[in-house]
Amino acid sequence: MILLGLDPGLAVTGWGIIAVDGNRLTHVANGQIKSDTSLSLAARLLALDGALTDIILEYRPGAAAVEEVFVNVNPQSTLKLGQARGICLLNAARAGMDVGEYAARLVKKSVVGTGGASKEQVHAMVARLLPGAAIAGPDAADALAVAITHAHHSATARRIGGGR
Amino acid sequence: MILLGLDPGLAVTGWGIIAVDGNRLTHVANGQIKSDTSLSLAARLLALDGALTDIILEYRPGAAAVEEVFVNVNPQSTLKLGQARGICLLNAARAGMDVGEYAARLVKKSVVGTGGASKEQVHAMVARLLPGAAIAGPDAADALAVAITHAHHSATARRIGGGR
Repeated sequence: MILLGLDPGLAVTGWGIIAVDGNRLTHVANGQIKSDTSLSLAARLLALDGALTDIILEYRPGAAAVEEVFVNVNPQSTLKLGQARGICLLNAARAGMDVGEYAARLVKKSVVGTGGASKEQVHAMVARLLPGAAIAGPDAADALAVAITHAHHSATARRIGGGR
Repeated sequence: MILLGLDPGLAVTGWGIIAVDGNRLTHVANGQIKSDTSLSLAARLLALDGALTDIILEYRPGAAAVEEVFVNVNPQSTLKLGQARGICLLNAARAGMDVGEYAARLVKKSVVGTGGASKEQVHAMVARLLPGAAIAGPDAADALAVAITHAHHSATARRIGGGR
């Protein structure tokens, strides 16, 4: 089973692909999609869509996972995040994937063992759980972490609810 | 020139197509895309994407316009709106359209003549400006209103800025 983890953002969307074989997790690929801030919002979303489509075509994941949204204090930031997140969810649905959604605390607990883990601890633990992975940056680490969480919890994965 | 106005929403996205020939505006089509709340969020966004793609293929608009976002008091509502709005902007960019964005007050001023106009006044004035249009509902009326605003202001249209 190939899993795609995503950490959506308008400026940077992290992505990570892992392979799951029973209890064994293997790193496949990861990266960060950065959008050109000189472009219009619509053009940035189009670039994100194209990059995600390419990744999905190349690695053919069977399921996707995203972090539950930390709703920002700044509503304009929440709106931007929502727009990028919409493109991520669209890509998963277009490829026929179910999307698991996990709270940040659960991701940290799954990967590090404690819900209060720092970003650095998550990064270090992802590198340890996926030996040989050259992690592109913090957003790619978060994307791999949510893919790992999905592998651990897929049986009880809470799907993104329509009414929420 | 064919213009597409959009009023994005996860539950209902209004759309309206008008033709502009100098100062003359003609109604072409309008409607409301409703999403099935029993589906997952990702599946709802996919359905919205498919419906918008069909509309754009059918009417081939040359430009699109959306209302600037009223950021909701409830951040979860802002996130939902952002996700649907991302799909709208993606569709415009994918079809090579520029997207104009207009503040709600400017839309009301353009259509009714006063920035404080009620929803009912906007609806009534859209029906008057586009005789013969059977308006599908309030979200379709808003979408037609933003298309009319774009026609009036396209020379000075403020593009959606990348950094906002």
